[in-house]
Amino acid sequence: MSAVKKKRAVVLVSGGLDSATCLAIAGDRGFECYALSFDYGQRASSELIAARRLAETAGVLEHKVIELNMGAIGGSALTDTDISIPEQESEGIPVTYVPARNTVFLSYALAWAEVLNANAIFIGVNALDYSGYPDCRPEYIEAFQTLINLATKVGVEGSVISLETPLIDLTKAEIIKTGVGLSVDYGLTVSCYQADSEGRACGQCDSCRFRVSGFETAEVEDPTRYQ
Amino acid sequence: MSAVKKKRAVVLVSGGLDSATCLAIAGDRGFECYALSFDYGQRASSELIAARRLAETAGVLEHKVIELNMGAIGGSALTDTDISIPEQESEGIPVTYVPARNTVFLSYALAWAEVLNANAIFIGVNALDYSGYPDCRPEYIEAFQTLINLATKVGVEGSVISLETPLIDLTKAEIIKTGVGLSVDYGLTVSCYQADSEGRACGQCDSCRFRVSGFETAEVEDPTRYQ
Repeated sequence: MSAVKKKRAVVLVSGGLDSATCLAIAGDRGFECYALSFDYGQRASSELIAARRLAETAGVLEHKVIELNMGAIGGSALTDTDISIPEQESEGIPVTYVPARNTVFLSYALAWAEVLNANAIFIGVNALDYSGYPDCRPEYIEAFQTLINLATKVGVEGSVISLETPLIDLTKAEIIKTGVGLSVDYGLTVSCYQADSEGRACGQCDSCRFRVSGFETAEVEDPTRYQ
Repeated sequence: MSAVKKKRAVVLVSGGLDSATCLAIAGDRGFECYALSFDYGQRASSELIAARRLAETAGVLEHKVIELNMGAIGGSALTDTDISIPEQESEGIPVTYVPARNTVFLSYALAWAEVLNANAIFIGVNALDYSGYPDCRPEYIEAFQTLINLATKVGVEGSVISLETPLIDLTKAEIIKTGVGLSVDYGLTVSCYQADSEGRACGQCDSCRFRVSGFETAEVEDPTRYQ
C-alpha cells in the first residue's frame, strides 16, 4: 500500500455529455473523484439515472445526489412547467436558463470539497456551445475561484481548492473526441432538456442540436437514442 | 394607487438578532422585503420558528423556507451531532463553522432575487463579532458582489443586484441600538447555537456571549429567555 495521499476532486455530474467527459478527465489527471449531482426538479429525471450510471462506471469513491427545491424559486423552462421549452434557436439568454444554477451547484461543491479536504472542483462548463448562460463564462469562473479563496476555512489557512473547467475552451466536437480517447461511453449520457423516461432524446432542443452536430463534426458515431 | 414600482429586496432571515435588525433596516430603506430562511438541519430549530415570527411581524411580502440537506455534507458542530459545541472561547475558525454556508445561502438568495427582479439582497453578516467565519468578511462580500454581476441574466443585461451588508462594520451593541431605534422586538429572536425547543438560550456558547455583552454595552434590557 502506498502512503502517498491521492489528490481528491469533487466533480459535478449532471448525466450529460460534458460532465461525463469532465469526470473522465479528472480521473485521468489522477484525482480520486467524488461525484455530485442535483435533483432540482428538472423535467428530465432520466438525467439523474444517467448520472448514477456514469458515476458508477467511472468508479467514483462516493456519489451524492442533493435534492434542491429550485422549483420553489421558479423562473426557468427547465424547472417551471408553465414555461415551454423552445424548439427554435433563441436570441440572447434562453428561457431554459435556471437562475443562479451554477452558483448554487458550485456552492454545494465547495461545501463538500471543504469537508473532504479536496484539492479541486471540476465542472464541465463550456464557453463556446454555452447556450448563452452567463454562468458558463470564463470571467464567471474566475470570480468563483476568487470567492473560494476567500470563503473557506482552508483558503484562509493558505490551501487552495482549485476550480477546474477542462472543457471551457473546447468545441462540442473536441469534447467528444477527448472523451472517446478516455473511453467515455456516451451511450450512458443524456443531454436532452426533455428526454423521455427511457432517456431517449427529443432531437429538437438547443442541447440536442449542439450534441448532434458535435458528433457529426467529430466524425464519431452518435450513440444517442432518439424518441 | 401609486404607479411607482417599489424597490424589492431578498432578506436572509435566520431568526437571530442580526438578521432581525437587517430586515428592519431593509424595510426602513423603502424596500419591499422577501424573507428567505433555510432549514439546514441546524440543531436549533427554534431559530426557524423565530424567523417565521420575525418575517410575519415585519410584514414581508413572502417568506420562503428552503430545506437544505447540509447534514448530508457534514463537517460542522451546528449540523453534525458527532461534533460537540464548545463552551469556551476558541482560537481560529471554530467548529461551529458550517462549510460554505453563506455561499450556499447567498446563491439561493441570488436565484430568488433574479426571479423577483429584486434590486438588492440583504445579509446581516458582521465582521467584528464574527466568530472567525471567513465568509463574513468584507473581502468575501465584495467577491460575491463581483460574482453576482457576472452570474446573472440581469447582470449581463446591465442591471445590478446589490449585495447589502448594513451590519458589517457595527459592534453588537451598535446593532442592538439600531434595531431598538427601528422597533425590533428582540424578544422574538433566537441567537443561541443550542436553544431549547421553547427558544430559550444556553447563555454559554459564543453566540450567547456576544449577545449578552451586546445588550450590556448598549445599555438595553436583554429580553432573551435563558434555560
